[in-house]
Amino acid sequence: MTPMGKVYLVGAGPGDPDLMTLRAVRMLREADAVVYDRLVSPEILSMAPKGAAMVPVGKAPKSHTVPQDRINEILAERAMAGQIVVRLKGGDPMIFGRGSEEAAYLQARGIHVEYAPGITAAQGMAAATGVPLTHRGLAIGVRYVTGHLAADKTLNLDWQSLADINTTLVVYMGASSISEIARQLIRAGLPANLPVLAVSNVTTPRETRVLSQLSQIGVDTQAHALRTPVLFVIGRVASLYQSAPLQQIPCLSEAMAGE
Amino acid sequence: MTPMGKVYLVGAGPGDPDLMTLRAVRMLREADAVVYDRLVSPEILSMAPKGAAMVPVGKAPKSHTVPQDRINEILAERAMAGQIVVRLKGGDPMIFGRGSEEAAYLQARGIHVEYAPGITAAQGMAAATGVPLTHRGLAIGVRYVTGHLAADKTLNLDWQSLADINTTLVVYMGASSISEIARQLIRAGLPANLPVLAVSNVTTPRETRVLSQLSQIGVDTQAHALRTPVLFVIGRVASLYQSAPLQQIPCLSEAMAGE
Repeated sequence: MTPMGKVYLVGAGPGDPDLMTLRAVRMLREADAVVYDRLVSPEILSMAPKGAAMVPVGKAPKSHTVPQDRINEILAERAMAGQIVVRLKGGDPMIFGRGSEEAAYLQARGIHVEYAPGITAAQGMAAATGVPLTHRGLAIGVRYVTGHLAADKTLNLDWQSLADINTTLVVYMGASSISEIARQLIRAGLPANLPVLAVSNVTTPRETRVLSQLSQIGVDTQAHALRTPVLFVIGRVASLYQSAPLQQIPCLSEAMAGE
Repeated sequence: MTPMGKVYLVGAGPGDPDLMTLRAVRMLREADAVVYDRLVSPEILSMAPKGAAMVPVGKAPKSHTVPQDRINEILAERAMAGQIVVRLKGGDPMIFGRGSEEAAYLQARGIHVEYAPGITAAQGMAAATGVPLTHRGLAIGVRYVTGHLAADKTLNLDWQSLADINTTLVVYMGASSISEIARQLIRAGLPANLPVLAVSNVTTPRETRVLSQLSQIGVDTQAHALRTPVLFVIGRVASLYQSAPLQQIPCLSEAMAGE
């Protein structure tokens, strides 16, 4: 009988391999199989052992994705076949990562699960730009939400609660809904000129940034054609961003491709 | 003339050295001086180079603390003397860490600053306990606040905004104010039986946990004499905690000391 394997739920962090935890790196190096999301950077995937099975499972907008039920089965099948399976996700598996759903499925089948947290994109943004998530006099707390649309195509958010001038609001996965989010936040009382920093592909060589304000961020996101994933930092802390406002910083690979 | 040094603002993570990022470890190993807070664990301090100057600067409740202005000066003086200074903080320097205040002071004096983010205590809690910060059907987002009292001894929080049943609320540094926080949240509409998980010294050998509910967490925190730092996770996600409810898990060192 094959001995039972196990599943490591691993946060890959925001993109830069340098921001992975020691535990995440060690778990990745033990992998017989790596089941990974689209948001995991190629630089990090290259750290897996040479012989490991590399299993992509999505999730790109508008492209083929493996359904969550099938992802659960893939993890269970491989662990039950004795493999050390690394389930590798962008950011932290316990923040918008469905890590706990996968863990519940596996544990119900007697499969051992261990976790490695990851630096989430908001923290990667802070380290990359110098814009903090809290700052005395500007933000007493921070809040993460997603801009994902519900099944009925609406945003399932409590605008009155979100429109808190003293809290930094970070919107994940909001590239397609940021216009509507900004409109609702202004309606709920946030100032139209509240600064917003949008960062695409944070901490990767493809990182680009746009500094804007609540009333303009929808237009600016489209004008700059920011590529997903995009993170939006809404709040007075964004006023601490030092670089040129409304100017996209071209990434190295693009600049070189243009030569 | 001495060449200018620099300051690395480094997040030590929640306590377990295994949860430090690769960048944080590398920066710590380069240090000529390590200026550290009380929340940084001994296990992590022992990773500094043998010859590095170790400079503690607080901050324990009710005990002597170096004022923030003096911390800024210490960092600047050492960097201007040519040292590589690691400013080491528990968690992430950009979340309740005053990292951006110190960076602003240093940059105004022409001192180069670099950042290493850290796993924040809420993420350490999720990895240690299996309780996620978001979960489909239980929490669509997460919010971090501190339970620190303002100068006038009150809690400067927007209770209506905080009392959002669909958002996980994580309270940092709330051991002495959790009774009042719970009372205000119930008054603002959260259910009295909403689960609350309290975790003391998360991800360290001294970690203890108490599962309670909003109406009882004040009493339970006192009854179990939870030692700071304590993190409170308020919300339906805490219902996913699997261990024995209302039971403190004795830590190894205490169990041995009691023999």
